[in-house]
Amino acid sequence: MERVGFIGLGQMGKPMARNLLNAGYSLTVYNRSKPPMEELASHGAKMAGSPSEVGSNSDVVILSLPYPETVKQVVLGTGGVIEGIHPGGVVIDTSTTDPLTARELYEELRKRGVGFLDAPVSGGPEGAEAATLTFMVGGENKDLERCMPILRAMGRHVFHVGGPGAGQGVKLVNQILVAIHTLAAAEAMLFASSLGLDLGMVLEVIQRSAGDSFIFRRVAPQFIARKFGRGWQTYLIHKDLGLVLKTAERLKLPMLLSSLAHEKYGAAITRGLEKIDSAAVIKVLEQLAGLKDTTKTNG
Amino acid sequence: MERVGFIGLGQMGKPMARNLLNAGYSLTVYNRSKPPMEELASHGAKMAGSPSEVGSNSDVVILSLPYPETVKQVVLGTGGVIEGIHPGGVVIDTSTTDPLTARELYEELRKRGVGFLDAPVSGGPEGAEAATLTFMVGGENKDLERCMPILRAMGRHVFHVGGPGAGQGVKLVNQILVAIHTLAAAEAMLFASSLGLDLGMVLEVIQRSAGDSFIFRRVAPQFIARKFGRGWQTYLIHKDLGLVLKTAERLKLPMLLSSLAHEKYGAAITRGLEKIDSAAVIKVLEQLAGLKDTTKTNG
Repeated sequence: MERVGFIGLGQMGKPMARNLLNAGYSLTVYNRSKPPMEELASHGAKMAGSPSEVGSNSDVVILSLPYPETVKQVVLGTGGVIEGIHPGGVVIDTSTTDPLTARELYEELRKRGVGFLDAPVSGGPEGAEAATLTFMVGGENKDLERCMPILRAMGRHVFHVGGPGAGQGVKLVNQILVAIHTLAAAEAMLFASSLGLDLGMVLEVIQRSAGDSFIFRRVAPQFIARKFGRGWQTYLIHKDLGLVLKTAERLKLPMLLSSLAHEKYGAAITRGLEKIDSAAVIKVLEQLAGLKDTTKTNG
Repeated sequence: MERVGFIGLGQMGKPMARNLLNAGYSLTVYNRSKPPMEELASHGAKMAGSPSEVGSNSDVVILSLPYPETVKQVVLGTGGVIEGIHPGGVVIDTSTTDPLTARELYEELRKRGVGFLDAPVSGGPEGAEAATLTFMVGGENKDLERCMPILRAMGRHVFHVGGPGAGQGVKLVNQILVAIHTLAAAEAMLFASSLGLDLGMVLEVIQRSAGDSFIFRRVAPQFIARKFGRGWQTYLIHKDLGLVLKTAERLKLPMLLSSLAHEKYGAAITRGLEKIDSAAVIKVLEQLAGLKDTTKTNG
């Protein structure tokens, strides 16, 4: 069995790492702050002092980090994974970055004889807990075949979508849809509520109509209950849309809806909603419409 | 069994009327142009010379017309249904109009002792053919109970969503989502194709990810095949968004995504795509990006 390393024990990474321990993998972990490391150590994980130390203790190193810059620093920077991992190892990046960053990491690691898979996920914290994530994997076939049991311990579907960077490409396509569908659901539900419609009934009917979407089913109950929680946080969807726009600029593609959505999630962040679920973007629309925020609690 | 009348035998109305004949209803039909009337007459329908004549021959009159103005003219205008229908009759409007128009029709007909249900549908021409439509019904309970068997002969789900106008309200909510999801799918697939991703694989993965929607599954195969057909025509989605914006103006609601979508479907109409499926809006985005249209055939 491969020795596995895990770097980045946040809302996604911690439950993913936990599922690897449950599947019986020997696991070395690293995180900037200590508490999540200690929690996993109490379930049998080994704590490392740096990404490089994770590398030297592992055959396969998994990353779950928020930003492309963080990923590059942790893999290629001083004290990074690349300083510890031996040739023949593989790095799997489950973070959402962008195709260009993924290709750069692939090239740099290949020079040291280390494989690289970009393997971003869909499913959110709920999917990470339940090991039902969908992995969108870009990279070489031999690396994916080798790592397949590891990915299967954390998710339900593993798609090999193309060469290096393709996983990030498909993930950004997914994020375009997620971000716009959330904003569309907010606009539609605000319209419904201004018309005085029964919102529970609207949810019931839309689920059986052409307007149905995974996101509508997820966010409509949040609008109805006026409870947004901290599931799919606004700053992350805003960050992902930023990566979409950066990538699109390189492709010379105007992204009308994505740009508008990026701007509105940005407004939500300005309004203090960065760590609240992105469904709370409805508050930005309500403010634009001059409506009073009826939410009692923060978020 | 109620004597039923049907006015408006277009892409939706003709198959809906056909399903009523199949269910054994005695049917009187009227349409501006003759061929669809003659087709239904060959299956046992009686042809009328005016909406008023449909009214005098029917207990329940169903409408399937493109615009609110047409509906008002056909019901309340000279030679309209109101001149023929007897007190105790019911008018069911399956057209997509708007809540205000529906309430006006309800009030005018009530003065003559005639019931009114606004009962717009979701499901498109395919749903009309297969009798799997979803009806979103606003109006009085007693009228709906009486008409339930008639609606069930044309659809699978019948939701009583509220009083007069509520059916049109929920339908507009659905159309907001349909229109934006279609444009979002176009933007996402154009991004995917510019990145060189395998579009069939993208469809496969998104179906199992958070970006999934009824519309994405419907339109992604159209983008891949570059065949748009004449299913959910652009001029109708543009018209529905126009009704959304008109209604929202009355509610003093800004509709950011709906306005943008309305503008882009308008651009598609200018480009000659009015009778082509609304998925062809991707051509507007391609033109904005300076890409060449690779579609061989019209649409």
